[in-house]
Amino acid sequence: MAIKFNHLYANGILPSSRPKQVSRGKYDFAVAYPDPKSFPTDEIISSLKDAIKANPDYLAIYPPQQGNALLRDYISHKIDRDRSIKVNSDQIILGNGSGQSIDMICSVLLNAGDAVITDQYVYGGTLNTLRRHSAKIIGVKSDEYGMDPENLSHTISKLSQQGTPPKFLYLIPTFQNPQGWTLPLDRRQEILKVCNEFGVPILEDDCYFDNRYEGEPVTSIYDLDQENSVIYVGSFSKTIAPGMSVGYMTGPNEFLDRAMFVKSGRVSEFAAMAVYQYSVNYLDQHISEINEIQKNKRDAMLSALGENFGNKAKWSHPEGGLYIWVEFDDQVDITELHQNSVNDIDVGFHPGTNYSPDGIDGKHFIRLCYGFNQPDEIKEGISKLGDYLAKKGVI
Amino acid sequence: MAIKFNHLYANGILPSSRPKQVSRGKYDFAVAYPDPKSFPTDEIISSLKDAIKANPDYLAIYPPQQGNALLRDYISHKIDRDRSIKVNSDQIILGNGSGQSIDMICSVLLNAGDAVITDQYVYGGTLNTLRRHSAKIIGVKSDEYGMDPENLSHTISKLSQQGTPPKFLYLIPTFQNPQGWTLPLDRRQEILKVCNEFGVPILEDDCYFDNRYEGEPVTSIYDLDQENSVIYVGSFSKTIAPGMSVGYMTGPNEFLDRAMFVKSGRVSEFAAMAVYQYSVNYLDQHISEINEIQKNKRDAMLSALGENFGNKAKWSHPEGGLYIWVEFDDQVDITELHQNSVNDIDVGFHPGTNYSPDGIDGKHFIRLCYGFNQPDEIKEGISKLGDYLAKKGVI
Repeated sequence: MAIKFNHLYANGILPSSRPKQVSRGKYDFAVAYPDPKSFPTDEIISSLKDAIKANPDYLAIYPPQQGNALLRDYISHKIDRDRSIKVNSDQIILGNGSGQSIDMICSVLLNAGDAVITDQYVYGGTLNTLRRHSAKIIGVKSDEYGMDPENLSHTISKLSQQGTPPKFLYLIPTFQNPQGWTLPLDRRQEILKVCNEFGVPILEDDCYFDNRYEGEPVTSIYDLDQENSVIYVGSFSKTIAPGMSVGYMTGPNEFLDRAMFVKSGRVSEFAAMAVYQYSVNYLDQHISEINEIQKNKRDAMLSALGENFGNKAKWSHPEGGLYIWVEFDDQVDITELHQNSVNDIDVGFHPGTNYSPDGIDGKHFIRLCYGFNQPDEIKEGISKLGDYLAKKGVI
Repeated sequence: MAIKFNHLYANGILPSSRPKQVSRGKYDFAVAYPDPKSFPTDEIISSLKDAIKANPDYLAIYPPQQGNALLRDYISHKIDRDRSIKVNSDQIILGNGSGQSIDMICSVLLNAGDAVITDQYVYGGTLNTLRRHSAKIIGVKSDEYGMDPENLSHTISKLSQQGTPPKFLYLIPTFQNPQGWTLPLDRRQEILKVCNEFGVPILEDDCYFDNRYEGEPVTSIYDLDQENSVIYVGSFSKTIAPGMSVGYMTGPNEFLDRAMFVKSGRVSEFAAMAVYQYSVNYLDQHISEINEIQKNKRDAMLSALGENFGNKAKWSHPEGGLYIWVEFDDQVDITELHQNSVNDIDVGFHPGTNYSPDGIDGKHFIRLCYGFNQPDEIKEGISKLGDYLAKKGVI
């Protein structure tokens, strides 16, 4: 006999199968990794050693709930230098990657059924978090420069008229995942203006900012904002490694106090100490190095796409980040091919449906990541994918 | 001008000041640390090095949402060996310390206003988590052997009659925090019987199990249970260090699937790899060593209490863990003295009110931890505290 749990679960709680190991292709254009060969093992370990030596008690005592103070101080200086964000270390909250920060922000702002605006195609991890919070997710169309401010204004108006004004706008303004574009300055200003007008906060997810390998940085929305309405999220996952699981947020003080209310668990002090000391000693140099590597990989993928996809598809030309967004003829449905391509040709990619709020829209798009494989492998893989898609009548 | 957030916050979200650094006494009997001098820096770093060498890609790719597979496998073997808990690695979910696990369990089971049963005095971190989930927390009295099964049965009956049957019972059966007792086998059986009868799951927080330095281990409630009704939580915070922030949970499969639904963020793979390799190489030996150290510290504190508190107070004699629970005359109100003692005599401790569901009950109790200071310091500190309490008329 077993006791029954069914009547004990809270409202809205669904089963979510514990994920099995997903099979990955040799040509893994699916998941967004930074270059695995450039993980700086020796420097990270020597940094950790130095950090423990400098503060031998830190691991034995419970770290502050907000996270390691030295790392928060480093972050406050870095985002001031790079993004003109002027906050002190007390205004930084560490999280496990940016994922925990985004989850906390949802916990602070969302009751079940509340509306949230995103891009028409946007990072699937955030979509899943919004779904878990039972949000009504509304996607706004973009062109090659990013979200269209007029569409945004129209969408907010409509939602407000329906009595469900959006709780916030989620944006990845730089090297958007999956679409690859970077919002130009004037777009950022226009979007901010619309949001300020309607009193809608913006969640600016700037986790790819450091991954720029050409062109000039664009001012952060946080910096443009005069109304204290932007919550800003960053991460070390794409500069050091996803396995560190160290990210951060800042925003209006009253908001941060509420984020602390919902924060559970502590960021590993062990990881935070390593990230801090490594960043002080090596991060700027490391970022230059990985950007050089990623640029070569991007170029390899762009040229392979040109050779193999020809004029049967369109794709983005990102100045940074890790993604190329490919659009096929709008009659194409890529979802079944996607399921077979790892088995058939050892090539992994994500279908566009992974990035749409309803999980249905996006059938004629795919997202390709160029972080994992080496340039030669990228060329091989794209050539295999091109042949495969041609054989299946997609291109 | 600033946009207004007030109307945007979700129901039940309160501000929670970002904590300032709390001032700690030289004699720090307040917070529960394992012995800081015994943190095995060199072994942890060499283990981490080995772990990265064995799996150089693990940090570059996103770890499984459930957490590092090797560590989950190690845990499944350890809790089988030590607690006769027979689960495989797929039935383990890693969390940031045990805190994140307990928070996930609350998310799965609690709507606002739901009742949860705990001890009359219990771990403040769990009380805070329950409060954040707007639970109605009901404390059940214990004697020197722990929670009284008759009281428990009466409490569940009453709650059920009121139409708010408890969603679960939270227990720290071994070296309870703060009271120090360990539930004997017959108590565990009786408590389990009551809970099974009423269909109430038990959350067994076994995070001190390894910290036994005398007497025989008592069977886990999970092992006694025949009705698949126990959710089990453990941690490496008290065996390796709080700064690792690595804990875990297991339980009925259908429950674990729901826990995955609410899980946000990933446990640092960096910390998990170090914990795994260190545990395989050194943990058993390390636990013997720290238990020897803690036993000496406990003995130092018990003998100092005998010398300085005499018959003016009663205190527990724990066979493990980190806490001694001291009861003064029930007219005593220790809360004000507690606030001054760090400044006045450099001695830190926690008042009993930190451990009661209403935060009011417990004024004539204090919790003393003996993990941080060395035995000589413990004797000095307790002597200072005894003089201070005598001067203030408490003892």
